[in-house]
Amino acid sequence: MGGTDDIEALIDLMARLPGLGPRSARRAVLHLIKKRGPLMTPLADALSHVAVTARECVNCGNIGTSDLCDICASEKRGNGEICVVEEVSDLWAMERGGAFKGRYHVLGGTLNALDAVGPDDLRIPQLVTRVAEEGVKEVILALNATVDGQTTAHYIAEQLEGTGVTVTSLAQGVPIGGELDYLDDGTISTALRARKNF
Amino acid sequence: MGGTDDIEALIDLMARLPGLGPRSARRAVLHLIKKRGPLMTPLADALSHVAVTARECVNCGNIGTSDLCDICASEKRGNGEICVVEEVSDLWAMERGGAFKGRYHVLGGTLNALDAVGPDDLRIPQLVTRVAEEGVKEVILALNATVDGQTTAHYIAEQLEGTGVTVTSLAQGVPIGGELDYLDDGTISTALRARKNF
Ligand SMILES: [Zn+2]
Ligand SMILES: [Zn+2]
Repeated sequence: MGGTDDIEALIDLMARLPGLGPRSARRAVLHLIKKRGPLMTPLADALSHVAVTARECVNCGNIGTSDLCDICASEKRGNGEICVVEEVSDLWAMERGGAFKGRYHVLGGTLNALDAVGPDDLRIPQLVTRVAEEGVKEVILALNATVDGQTTAHYIAEQLEGTGVTVTSLAQGVPIGGELDYLDDGTISTALRARKNF
Repeated sequence: MGGTDDIEALIDLMARLPGLGPRSARRAVLHLIKKRGPLMTPLADALSHVAVTARECVNCGNIGTSDLCDICASEKRGNGEICVVEEVSDLWAMERGGAFKGRYHVLGGTLNALDAVGPDDLRIPQLVTRVAEEGVKEVILALNATVDGQTTAHYIAEQLEGTGVTVTSLAQGVPIGGELDYLDDGTISTALRARKNF
């Protein structure tokens, strides 16, 4: 179709994004070609730029554009609370809730025997180190209400036993089997306020 | 969040794609950052490239990367049949069906009195010229089975009266109110084979 090999290649790449199939990728590409100046070129530039600049925060695993993310770099957020989440998307969901004023720790997944994901594959040793070094008073486990999420929560609580830190978990409002990133912001805020000792 | 203004800007751009909302745009961006080498950078490059090279075929309105699209440039496709579609996405849907061997004419929309879309806003005058100049024997109207689509079909049929060209339309298989781009390929092929005089 008119030297459209390049366009087909673009559609194939777009179709590999989560939430887009081949059909929606085609529609997206046609839309982009129609909105070349206002959307397609800026999107290409933003992708190139972020592909080069994005990196994991060395402290918490959040994604940002410097070695230390804004939250870890901010004195204000050093209130002695660390909220442990599975993925960066969960951290972003917590931030949208706006109720948490401390820092985060992104595990990068959950313990899973079948997939052979052990503590060292996550960021659990680093969490234990942070608790010791950052003067942390409370670790809030904001893991998904799934079997793997709760297994991981129990494992972390064990690791922190005897350190004197209070370990709590999000409680009220998180539905069984629910994933944080799909909850509305109000639910997350409520669950945070009603957190209980783990 | 860690100098994430750039990342937020990228999410905002992604969220402007059809089929992606803010939440799926965030997930897409996190996925891209994880797949930087195999996906994010190639996608950025493909977008930049196509933003520069994509153009409308001067003859039929298809999108390609040269002035004349492959279909218009191919002698094989010059069989005296022109299939008239509303949008490039419809042309692509017809091509996936694989049943049509002629050329296309992309109108760029439908007549619509409310939106003040008249014949000159579409590619209707160019269609009349092509019918006269390309030795066309049959014009197949493959417009959507909507009120505007059918109004446009009737208008085009009127314009081609007296030219000696046979005007047909897709018939069997196109559901009332259905849009071509959402139909399965088999349905389109069936509708093409069962086309009737208009
Ligand atoms: Zn950080
Ligand atoms: Zn063409």
